[in-house]
Amino acid sequence: MNIAFAEDHESPSVAVPLESSLSLINSQESAVRSYCRGTPIVFEKANGSCLFDESGNCYIDFLCAAGSVNYGHNDPHIKKSLVDYMTSNGVLQTLDFATGAKAEFLRKFRDIILAPRQLQYRVQFTGPTGTNAVEAAVKLARKHTARRPVVAFTNAYHGVSLGALALTGNQSKRKAAGVSLGDVIRLPYDGYLGASVDTAELARTLFNDPSSGFDAPAAFIVETVQGEGGLNVASAGWLQSIARLAKDLGALLIVDDIQAGCGRAGRFFSFEELGVTPDLVCLSKSISGSGLPMALTLIRPHLDVWEPGEHNGTFRGNNLAFVGASAAIDYWAQGEFELGIAKRATMIETVLREVCIQHLEGRARVVGKSLFTGLRFEVPQAAERIRLGMLRRGVLAETCGPRDEVLKIMPALNIPENLLVQGLEALTASAAEFAD
Amino acid sequence: MNIAFAEDHESPSVAVPLESSLSLINSQESAVRSYCRGTPIVFEKANGSCLFDESGNCYIDFLCAAGSVNYGHNDPHIKKSLVDYMTSNGVLQTLDFATGAKAEFLRKFRDIILAPRQLQYRVQFTGPTGTNAVEAAVKLARKHTARRPVVAFTNAYHGVSLGALALTGNQSKRKAAGVSLGDVIRLPYDGYLGASVDTAELARTLFNDPSSGFDAPAAFIVETVQGEGGLNVASAGWLQSIARLAKDLGALLIVDDIQAGCGRAGRFFSFEELGVTPDLVCLSKSISGSGLPMALTLIRPHLDVWEPGEHNGTFRGNNLAFVGASAAIDYWAQGEFELGIAKRATMIETVLREVCIQHLEGRARVVGKSLFTGLRFEVPQAAERIRLGMLRRGVLAETCGPRDEVLKIMPALNIPENLLVQGLEALTASAAEFAD
Amino acid sequence: MNIAFAEDHESPSVAVPLESSLSLINSQESAVRSYCRGTPIVFEKANGSCLFDESGNCYIDFLCAAGSVNYGHNDPHIKKSLVDYMTSNGVLQTLDFATGAKAEFLRKFRDIILAPRQLQYRVQFTGPTGTNAVEAAVKLARKHTARRPVVAFTNAYHGVSLGALALTGNQSKRKAAGVSLGDVIRLPYDGYLGASVDTAELARTLFNDPSSGFDAPAAFIVETVQGEGGLNVASAGWLQSIARLAKDLGALLIVDDIQAGCGRAGRFFSFEELGVTPDLVCLSKSISGSGLPMALTLIRPHLDVWEPGEHNGTFRGNNLAFVGASAAIDYWAQGEFELGIAKRATMIETVLREVCIQHLEGRARVVGKSLFTGLRFEVPQAAERIRLGMLRRGVLAETCGPRDEVLKIMPALNIPENLLVQGLEALTASAAEFAD
Amino acid sequence: MNIAFAEDHESPSVAVPLESSLSLINSQESAVRSYCRGTPIVFEKANGSCLFDESGNCYIDFLCAAGSVNYGHNDPHIKKSLVDYMTSNGVLQTLDFATGAKAEFLRKFRDIILAPRQLQYRVQFTGPTGTNAVEAAVKLARKHTARRPVVAFTNAYHGVSLGALALTGNQSKRKAAGVSLGDVIRLPYDGYLGASVDTAELARTLFNDPSSGFDAPAAFIVETVQGEGGLNVASAGWLQSIARLAKDLGALLIVDDIQAGCGRAGRFFSFEELGVTPDLVCLSKSISGSGLPMALTLIRPHLDVWEPGEHNGTFRGNNLAFVGASAAIDYWAQGEFELGIAKRATMIETVLREVCIQHLEGRARVVGKSLFTGLRFEVPQAAERIRLGMLRRGVLAETCGPRDEVLKIMPALNIPENLLVQGLEALTASAAEFAD
Repeated sequence: MNIAFAEDHESPSVAVPLESSLSLINSQESAVRSYCRGTPIVFEKANGSCLFDESGNCYIDFLCAAGSVNYGHNDPHIKKSLVDYMTSNGVLQTLDFATGAKAEFLRKFRDIILAPRQLQYRVQFTGPTGTNAVEAAVKLARKHTARRPVVAFTNAYHGVSLGALALTGNQSKRKAAGVSLGDVIRLPYDGYLGASVDTAELARTLFNDPSSGFDAPAAFIVETVQGEGGLNVASAGWLQSIARLAKDLGALLIVDDIQAGCGRAGRFFSFEELGVTPDLVCLSKSISGSGLPMALTLIRPHLDVWEPGEHNGTFRGNNLAFVGASAAIDYWAQGEFELGIAKRATMIETVLREVCIQHLEGRARVVGKSLFTGLRFEVPQAAERIRLGMLRRGVLAETCGPRDEVLKIMPALNIPENLLVQGLEALTASAAEFAD
Repeated sequence: MNIAFAEDHESPSVAVPLESSLSLINSQESAVRSYCRGTPIVFEKANGSCLFDESGNCYIDFLCAAGSVNYGHNDPHIKKSLVDYMTSNGVLQTLDFATGAKAEFLRKFRDIILAPRQLQYRVQFTGPTGTNAVEAAVKLARKHTARRPVVAFTNAYHGVSLGALALTGNQSKRKAAGVSLGDVIRLPYDGYLGASVDTAELARTLFNDPSSGFDAPAAFIVETVQGEGGLNVASAGWLQSIARLAKDLGALLIVDDIQAGCGRAGRFFSFEELGVTPDLVCLSKSISGSGLPMALTLIRPHLDVWEPGEHNGTFRGNNLAFVGASAAIDYWAQGEFELGIAKRATMIETVLREVCIQHLEGRARVVGKSLFTGLRFEVPQAAERIRLGMLRRGVLAETCGPRDEVLKIMPALNIPENLLVQGLEALTASAAEFAD
Repeated sequence: MNIAFAEDHESPSVAVPLESSLSLINSQESAVRSYCRGTPIVFEKANGSCLFDESGNCYIDFLCAAGSVNYGHNDPHIKKSLVDYMTSNGVLQTLDFATGAKAEFLRKFRDIILAPRQLQYRVQFTGPTGTNAVEAAVKLARKHTARRPVVAFTNAYHGVSLGALALTGNQSKRKAAGVSLGDVIRLPYDGYLGASVDTAELARTLFNDPSSGFDAPAAFIVETVQGEGGLNVASAGWLQSIARLAKDLGALLIVDDIQAGCGRAGRFFSFEELGVTPDLVCLSKSISGSGLPMALTLIRPHLDVWEPGEHNGTFRGNNLAFVGASAAIDYWAQGEFELGIAKRATMIETVLREVCIQHLEGRARVVGKSLFTGLRFEVPQAAERIRLGMLRRGVLAETCGPRDEVLKIMPALNIPENLLVQGLEALTASAAEFAD
Repeated sequence: MNIAFAEDHESPSVAVPLESSLSLINSQESAVRSYCRGTPIVFEKANGSCLFDESGNCYIDFLCAAGSVNYGHNDPHIKKSLVDYMTSNGVLQTLDFATGAKAEFLRKFRDIILAPRQLQYRVQFTGPTGTNAVEAAVKLARKHTARRPVVAFTNAYHGVSLGALALTGNQSKRKAAGVSLGDVIRLPYDGYLGASVDTAELARTLFNDPSSGFDAPAAFIVETVQGEGGLNVASAGWLQSIARLAKDLGALLIVDDIQAGCGRAGRFFSFEELGVTPDLVCLSKSISGSGLPMALTLIRPHLDVWEPGEHNGTFRGNNLAFVGASAAIDYWAQGEFELGIAKRATMIETVLREVCIQHLEGRARVVGKSLFTGLRFEVPQAAERIRLGMLRRGVLAETCGPRDEVLKIMPALNIPENLLVQGLEALTASAAEFAD
């Protein structure tokens, strides 16, 4: 057998560009680009919690690609598995054919993630983006219940493909749809109407009234911590009320754990200690362990009513991502990994509280949970100014919330403690600078 | 700086599974899985046009993951670039921050792909799936025109997220939406109503009549060759008519080149010799060169009316895919690559015609174009029976079309000739067997 | 019992207006008013086929309020029944309580209209507008089939409330919706694509193809003659094909007989001699015999799956209209009435053909059927110019069609022959004038 | 001129039916009929506040056809104008041609209704049903703002054509749509979440948050008293807050005064003393004075952006209704009419409060306002049982509310006092009977 065609092929010599990477990107990439505008740095390499620019300067990563590299960049254990797989000609892309890499992932996911947590889910490999996992979950809920509306909450973020966008709260992104975003019932999230209003009870009132205009939904979709929405945290009690209401209405409970899952909120699943067992769970971002695209919809077995191929997509067989995912799961076989998260969370919280007291005096408060945390400011611009201060000090962070009024601190779950300290010092200094 | 946490970490020893990969997949993966049902083989490794199962048997790949590995599996040139990037700690995942890998891709895409073809497009990196590139294109068209309806054609396949699914024809996939698939005007594709009806003229009639009920659209979205729809080929004349109609109506022309592009239909873009210049082009599948997820929406510069971040998605910074994409573009710097495609296309067409004449006598005809080709059978089951015959003979192919009545032949663009011959012999033998 | 309150009440003396009726209407009525713009005449009284303006001038009525006064204005037999009912304190408005007037109508409708035609329908009294009858029919079809899409045809007109508007073709009216008009599949009407394309066959092709993108519909809704759409006539063969297709697909056949029914197309129901029995029929306009608002949805008994009150509306108990309707039905007890229609139809057709030959030489052709007829011109403005010529000569007619290119001739079914002749003479003279 | 055709025509002799009116209705009318089920009485004649059955028994009317005969049945002054108009061959039906009857109505409506209240509105004659007036208002708001969503409130009732149904809260009616009811934002009405939650403030919070998921609306549509929803009354303060919010958002305020208007809530417009001036007002039900179908959309002049004919409908020229409407307006020229309403309202309220105290002890409370009032019971069945008690005593009333838990008392605005007393005695006796 002769497969020499490709190997014989010489890499063509192309003229070395004189233009800078940044000018090239600015002239060639669509106006839709966003992060690169506020952070005009060209990243080349990355190692753990360090991102390196073209000149080799390290930026401490307090963003983790919006929670998609929770294990740090190029984690040695994960990276080794990827390189080994590639060098041994492991199959990369196979639609949804069976592969050893997929089987290995499924086995580890069952044995190390699901079984110890007494969870039973069938795994759907959707197209490898969070929005696709959400589309699949919502479709399945509608199919199972033969109902159309899905409940989503204020400040929710679930993606930008049309089905997911209908669930997303952000108005500028919604407006981009150009068409109606229907079949969604929007309700206030936990705490949205202040401490005195139990919004789960409000939801129950609306659905129990046969002329409220709130039709029985196919599902409730909820983030236990709203990342883009401003690090709002749902209480266990509220989530349980929503879960009960869903059950009473014959609706499914979908937890969108795309950002809060994979350890970000302290446990592998964000809902582990909250007393609810979702019917469907969406996972993506850090599930591949490496930042490679991958997404899953977990389905309680009796709800797995899909017909073969009913929801498909070319890249749902991204085997390299499966390999990284299997390697990442190894970390969860040991309790120490969660202890490490908790320790770092405490370090951050201590500093954030101190910063609030020392420098921000009532102008900000600590929000979020575990390593999914930050500061919410009264004044929208404050968060951005502190972000820029941190950037000048070599720390990459981001803002979130309806008006970008929240400074988001999302380091790797395994960030070395010295880097974490260093990054937090930059935060403190930037806050102090801002406060002056 | 101490980043030892991860490195110190031992891979945990997990019990070796006794269960087979296939049984594991069947018990753990959702019922939605499809390809693995008709081809109960576990693939482990892949090299060029060979897929290897667990026992090391080679299957000649006439499917190429639905056109997403057009350069073969683990093409040495592309693979080397990926491994080098990873081993040197190239940054893998960066949202849409600027990276050297992205800049390099943009430069090569401009200099080697766009410029020689006199094309000018801004590049939008959408979420790395074809359906997402379609969602972005359709949103942008609606935004630009402030209109809602988009024209899609019979037998079209554009993806399964809600916005793309509305454009897709397949009824079982449409039904899974569970909600109305609105804001789409469906029209018959070229040739759909037989040779005597010019369906572009029909479209013009409908849109010119102010009480036809066909509202002026934001865009026409079209595949130049309908892959999933059964390898239907649009003529240059028809496409030009549609392009003119779109222009006359103030609508955009979107070419979904996700499957037909990247060389599959003979040229890098499938529309290159058809006399049309689309306003927007969707690319995915083989754009990364490696089967890694990646997707682009190309935008004529004056139409790039996006606000920053208006359409986003975590994995639009899949740098490893950019690296593979840059390597793959190298092949297009030389005219020989296209000659190689043409040569293989001729080899296939010759055999297909011969098979029709010798064995299928009027029960099938050759359809499609270049390496995006196959046989359409009168009887739906025929294609599947021949596919199974080929599988038994070690060749992987698939069926497509409304009733799976088309046997699809999609080898790598650089498949070694001996493997191509071998695969076609298996096809001939399977057809002969069927005919008996 | 003392009900003197109202009787004791004096009509207040209000100052006599100095402003003209027309200026009052132009200043007080919304800009949406339309007919009164092209015909700036204030009508006061009406008798049979004469409309009288403020000065007592008679206009021969070739419009019949768009077919809603098919028996002429203030037909003595009908008017007598109305006045008698009112003067005897017959109850006028009763929601859908049982009344003697309703019972009388139902009896006559069953015995004189349905039974002799071997038709069996339950009668739904919808809100008293055609659009409401259409809304009810479409809802019921969707309920019965549990499907969403309804097929409507090019140039269809079914009303302007949102559900009906989605079925209507007219783009300016559609645009006024401001939202998507979904869940409708638009297909070409009989003859729309020229004589060589059987559009019923085309519909079958589309619905039989599982990836055409045409989902199985709840119903087909069709006008046997499209009034607003330009007096297009469906052939019996085409209607039968559509009826068969609907049946094969498990969809209902709805005939919108609002304008073509009540004798306008020659028989009580327009479909009587066309070999189809619709599942649902919408009637309105002339059903009340008097121009008073009334609308019905007729339902084949096994399809009457409504829950009580599921579709309601205050004015569905417009008893005065029922009284007029009962009186009008009397005319249908005798065959002579239909003979009278036929005789008038022949008189009109003869003149129209003569006009085409003598004066319009290929610039117009006779369209429509029976007393639902007219001339279609090549040039849109022609019809309007002739309409104005007729108006100057004391004859009221209207234009219709996508570009108002059709002059519509719709006299009362019982128009006195001398008035018909006089009106047609005005038409001939106006056409001659135009031709010069 | 010879118009003898109709006059010569003999009324045919049809066999006298042996079947009862009720059995005829039950066998011939659709299953959708509702009121006639709970009140199996055939009404024949009506005079003021008396409805007479086939045997001549009087039923005191505490329902007024859901508020569509506010002046009583066959009010002598109104009836005389109708009969005079008909006997003098007044034109009945004229699409939207100018007529003297329309001009007279517009003049009186301007001079007697609008001008004294310092209101300026253009009048749109929509199709003569409330639902059509709502469809027109919502279309116009969407056209003016170029936005899609409209805010409607819990327990709202705005009609059942598709556009209006989307605004209506009742779930059984909503379900009958069979399709998504989109482009509506549902918010809680005044008091819906208890006294402690200001739902107007809640609305402001939601619309001010750019990621709440609540898009800026085209309009807020509100009933000042929710009739079908259970006689819920909006406070002046809440309405003013909603009006301010609408203004701040660039949205229109639509008051659906179809049931609460025309004097039902004490003034001609229900919003007269509430400190708001709606942008659009929907009127129907009693606007014709007679129960004849008629509906208006009132438009603040600068918002009258309709194109001619953009919203049409055959029966918008129901001249007989205009004549009745003009006669009814006479009553409003004098202050005494409103005094008469107030007096009757006090009589009713006194009795209702007494009934609550004497017989229902905390099981019911008085709800509503003016002559749009009733009793809300804790137990749903109570209202129906008392309604039946009243019916046995010769008084016609109805129930409303999400679970039919409200007994609705809606006598004519001019009900003779002795009949009112008699009806209220029946109510008291029925309540006492129920309480035992």
